[in-house]
Amino acid sequence: MTHDQGRQRVVIEGVQPEIDGAIFPIKRTIGEEVVVEADAFADGHDALRILLCYRSETAQQWTEIPMTFLGNDRWRASFQATTLGQWHYTITGWVDRFATWRRDLVKKVEAGLDLRIDLLVGATLIEEAATRGTTKDRRILMKWGKDLRSKDIPENDRIHVALSAEVEAVVAKYPDRRCSSTYERELTVVVDREKARFSAWYEMFPRSWSLTAGRHGTFKDCEASLPYIASMGFDVLYLPPIHPIGRTHRKGKNNAPISGPDDPGSPWAIGGPEGGHKSIHPELGTLQDFRSLIEQARLRSIEIAMDIAFQCSPDHPYVKEHREWFRIRPDGTVQYAENPPKKYQDIFPLDFETERWRELWEELKSVIMYWIEEGVRIFRVDNPHTKPFPFWEWLIGGVKQTYPDVIFLSEAFTRPKPMARLAKLGFSQSYNYFPWRNTKSELVQYFTELTQSDMREFLRPNLWPNTPDILTEQLQHGGRPAFMTRFVLAATLGANYGIYGPAFELGEHVPREVGSEEYLNSEKYEIKKWNLEGSDSIREFIGIVNRIRRENPALQNNWSLRFHEVANEQLVCYSKRTSDNSNVILIVVNLSPHHVHSGWLELNLESLAVDPQAPFQVQDLLTNTHHLWEGRRNYVEVNPHSVPAHIFRIRRRIHTERDFDYFL
Amino acid sequence: MTHDQGRQRVVIEGVQPEIDGAIFPIKRTIGEEVVVEADAFADGHDALRILLCYRSETAQQWTEIPMTFLGNDRWRASFQATTLGQWHYTITGWVDRFATWRRDLVKKVEAGLDLRIDLLVGATLIEEAATRGTTKDRRILMKWGKDLRSKDIPENDRIHVALSAEVEAVVAKYPDRRCSSTYERELTVVVDREKARFSAWYEMFPRSWSLTAGRHGTFKDCEASLPYIASMGFDVLYLPPIHPIGRTHRKGKNNAPISGPDDPGSPWAIGGPEGGHKSIHPELGTLQDFRSLIEQARLRSIEIAMDIAFQCSPDHPYVKEHREWFRIRPDGTVQYAENPPKKYQDIFPLDFETERWRELWEELKSVIMYWIEEGVRIFRVDNPHTKPFPFWEWLIGGVKQTYPDVIFLSEAFTRPKPMARLAKLGFSQSYNYFPWRNTKSELVQYFTELTQSDMREFLRPNLWPNTPDILTEQLQHGGRPAFMTRFVLAATLGANYGIYGPAFELGEHVPREVGSEEYLNSEKYEIKKWNLEGSDSIREFIGIVNRIRRENPALQNNWSLRFHEVANEQLVCYSKRTSDNSNVILIVVNLSPHHVHSGWLELNLESLAVDPQAPFQVQDLLTNTHHLWEGRRNYVEVNPHSVPAHIFRIRRRIHTERDFDYFL
Repeated sequence: MTHDQGRQRVVIEGVQPEIDGAIFPIKRTIGEEVVVEADAFADGHDALRILLCYRSETAQQWTEIPMTFLGNDRWRASFQATTLGQWHYTITGWVDRFATWRRDLVKKVEAGLDLRIDLLVGATLIEEAATRGTTKDRRILMKWGKDLRSKDIPENDRIHVALSAEVEAVVAKYPDRRCSSTYERELTVVVDREKARFSAWYEMFPRSWSLTAGRHGTFKDCEASLPYIASMGFDVLYLPPIHPIGRTHRKGKNNAPISGPDDPGSPWAIGGPEGGHKSIHPELGTLQDFRSLIEQARLRSIEIAMDIAFQCSPDHPYVKEHREWFRIRPDGTVQYAENPPKKYQDIFPLDFETERWRELWEELKSVIMYWIEEGVRIFRVDNPHTKPFPFWEWLIGGVKQTYPDVIFLSEAFTRPKPMARLAKLGFSQSYNYFPWRNTKSELVQYFTELTQSDMREFLRPNLWPNTPDILTEQLQHGGRPAFMTRFVLAATLGANYGIYGPAFELGEHVPREVGSEEYLNSEKYEIKKWNLEGSDSIREFIGIVNRIRRENPALQNNWSLRFHEVANEQLVCYSKRTSDNSNVILIVVNLSPHHVHSGWLELNLESLAVDPQAPFQVQDLLTNTHHLWEGRRNYVEVNPHSVPAHIFRIRRRIHTERDFDYFL
Repeated sequence: MTHDQGRQRVVIEGVQPEIDGAIFPIKRTIGEEVVVEADAFADGHDALRILLCYRSETAQQWTEIPMTFLGNDRWRASFQATTLGQWHYTITGWVDRFATWRRDLVKKVEAGLDLRIDLLVGATLIEEAATRGTTKDRRILMKWGKDLRSKDIPENDRIHVALSAEVEAVVAKYPDRRCSSTYERELTVVVDREKARFSAWYEMFPRSWSLTAGRHGTFKDCEASLPYIASMGFDVLYLPPIHPIGRTHRKGKNNAPISGPDDPGSPWAIGGPEGGHKSIHPELGTLQDFRSLIEQARLRSIEIAMDIAFQCSPDHPYVKEHREWFRIRPDGTVQYAENPPKKYQDIFPLDFETERWRELWEELKSVIMYWIEEGVRIFRVDNPHTKPFPFWEWLIGGVKQTYPDVIFLSEAFTRPKPMARLAKLGFSQSYNYFPWRNTKSELVQYFTELTQSDMREFLRPNLWPNTPDILTEQLQHGGRPAFMTRFVLAATLGANYGIYGPAFELGEHVPREVGSEEYLNSEKYEIKKWNLEGSDSIREFIGIVNRIRRENPALQNNWSLRFHEVANEQLVCYSKRTSDNSNVILIVVNLSPHHVHSGWLELNLESLAVDPQAPFQVQDLLTNTHHLWEGRRNYVEVNPHSVPAHIFRIRRRIHTERDFDYFL
């Protein structure tokens, strides 16, 4: 026991949010609230003062605010993180002798006890506060102390002084904190920009977007496609790797082990004679073209997200220049990727167990830094779960120290624990199991876990109904209604979501073979020609939903998600709202792509901020129809062949006769 | 990143049991299992080796045992703590390259791939293990390595060697642990003796046990009472404070503010001219008498538990000798205890905020050490929640470092969080809310929390149906059946329990006033004369239940507690069992002291280790009656006016015709 530890009577424990004993930070976006709770108590029954302390990384001093007592020794306070980067928080508290004394004095006054000694005790406490006060306050406090001691002042008047709010306020400014306790851990919140929480992604292969048939698409072609993408309302344009593609063991169409001379190869087989991760595939254009694309996109409020796949084709410059970064086989060849008995000879994994891991790490970080300096601020990281976890923690931590506005999306379709670990250690957003959550009970269970458990403190889901690797059975068999349904679910269950287009909006649904989730003639291995003007395209519907997302802040968060009962397993109903209830959205989705479904909603009116006694209006933002509802039970009918969902805005106040001038 | 941290690919998290980020230890008694689970995984899909490491405080090295994979990245192993004191545990793990290689080799063999390079890789791994092996094993391993490389040996034979269990076993002895990860926290388990988990307490005021009417009872009288206490089967005899009692402001009968000359005073007003916490009240006898009582009790397998109440009467020697340990009022008097507007002028609390706290702490610890050296090993601590938490942590930690067999019972009838904190910081057992949990739903909810939540790792409840301060309404109004019911609940829900006698066994039930839980003419303020031979005494019933507890190890633990359904709110049904299911006890208690109740049990047969397809026998250990039951639903009827409970021993195997020699 050192110093005054033995007199630190206040215990602080059970702090929330706290991840794994504060080893990992929680996450917020700028301006979001951090609500902190803790158990705080002392021996005996003295009054306590408990403060939440918080500061931005660069602030020298804590800002301290009082915590509110909630009962059962629990306290709560909150703060807003107003700048990007790391913020810290902790809790401190002490026994407040003056507040204890005041509280007891009130009881003694009520019981009519002799207060002479008590007033002297109070005078001493006030005078002790005076020694800690400013010159001006010290004078005032000494005066009050003297008054409390004065036999010339009637006892009632002295009691009046002792219990005055004025005395309370000034004494409280100068507490005796010598024996205060501070929680043993300093907690961290990583503050990201808003796009980490609210974003709509569009993935496309630039090489398929040529305006001239038969020519390899370029960044210039991408620029030309921006109006199309902007018309649908996306704000992130994610491009698969843009680097030179290897020739050795290049994959042909449909992942064939042998390619023809015209096969473009998989963009994830990175590196060739033209360069590696810091180079651009010549057929896409120049670095200047890429810069131009970033700029043109920016003018349409679209950001470019870059793919980071830390692996090499056999032709990558690293293979020659840094053989020590690869595992060498006994025959002197470089170990290719394998998942026995499957071989992926077009890919050499980097060997993170190399003795030269420090140099490897630095080089990979320099790749990210290179593209950041070219203007990229969003990285979609390919298979992070196949590289060591400490590497990512170091990389993301280091990058964000300089560039706190950078967003990393983790593409780890892996087991729950590694997926969560990547989110904890720093990834801003995470792909997740949404593609395979299709039934009502699956959706309710999974999204309750994602949005109501501790996981929400660190894992921000990004919902993708499809990707170039994932064409789900639901999409293979459900036709246009399935695409619309899965789109509405992604865009309203998730504040962050994305689609791989134009395969998605055009309803591309044929798998390579029965039981496969790979696309037939996948764009990963060949250049496609898309007919964007196809009459079945759901691009307009996408545009409407994205506009609704932008106009309704309720859809820009996940934590307010609440499911409502409907006695029909094909109808799922949920709501989201803003913290001030100024915007409340209720969504009903028909999960069947085949049949019209109807049912009676059993609404949780409290979570909709609706008065159970008054009628309310709901406006379907998809069809602009209005319904007058009242109470919990209300009827809905959803036809998948027209619009497979309702997105209702709750309008609580409706007109009555009292709203008219001529009433009365 | 230092050293090889960057290559530590295994992540270890989610370790259980772990209390508050390993700030506090868990608790076990000697021989009990510590089952440890953790999430452990690495990037990619390599095979892992995960070990549980444990050691006693004095061991120089960890004992390591492999953990078993449970699925979902979860691992489990367990160990037994075989000596008293602190034990430590943590988890370590690494990527097992040889196991990965073997696993992949099997797949490649099955797929008929070319294995030439793979066998060379395996040879290298075996040879690397050889460099870490003993001379003998090194020779064997080098031979196997050579075999794997040998072109003279047919490939099939080489594969056979590579996959042999022998090679696996020897290579596994010499793993490459350079890049192993160890969980960042070392966890602690405090190992107590069995009595910390399983004990039956009897509280008595020695002064009321005089064999001569009108004389103050003595330790000698206590010795004479030992056969009576032993006949009921108790193994802890707890005495209220045995120190000199103050005279100043001594309380009279029924807590009267003024006492008469013959009033003995409350034993908790400690200290007089004869001495303080290290002295014995002269009327009880001498130190020699106390030693004799401890010895005589020991011969009957009863331990003496001493009361520790760190507070002083105004006549305590500390008040003169150490005024700096008390708070002094402005008029120069010592601050007495108060709970405004109530005053307790017979008690001076110690001021733990004194500048001299270190000396105060040392003195109080010396009190405990003094009595330990006199042979006391169990302390019941009065109101620990009114002294600082860090004090107890220091005191208990320090005492147990030298005397790991000491047991501390926390008497903190306070709010849940401080109660739990005292248990976390070191108290071996805890009084709790059992006195006020009377209805079925109250009992089910509270005991599920106590025995199935994380709380069980550190808080061992000690169940008291009454104390000198607590005569519950249930006991006031329920008559003899209520006493029997509450006794059975205490003795079977809790492996640790106690009663304040003879008030309890004699059914003392009159409160000081309506609405009070204080006894009328409480023994706290006067000497009582008990008629132990009263015909209503439940002493025989108590003796039977305590014998059942001793004979049935199922009742000696709390963790196996499971409640079973009965469609009658007045019947509560629960079971306990040993970990090997060799002893399974099922209890049914009628909570109504007035009416016969009956109902159909809905047994959870799995938790009774009963085959749902076969009949089984239950033997009521209270009445020695036998019943033949089958399946979940079985009928019971309980009459509170005879025996208000069943304590069934489940006898799974019953005789059939096949058991007889003449069958067939």
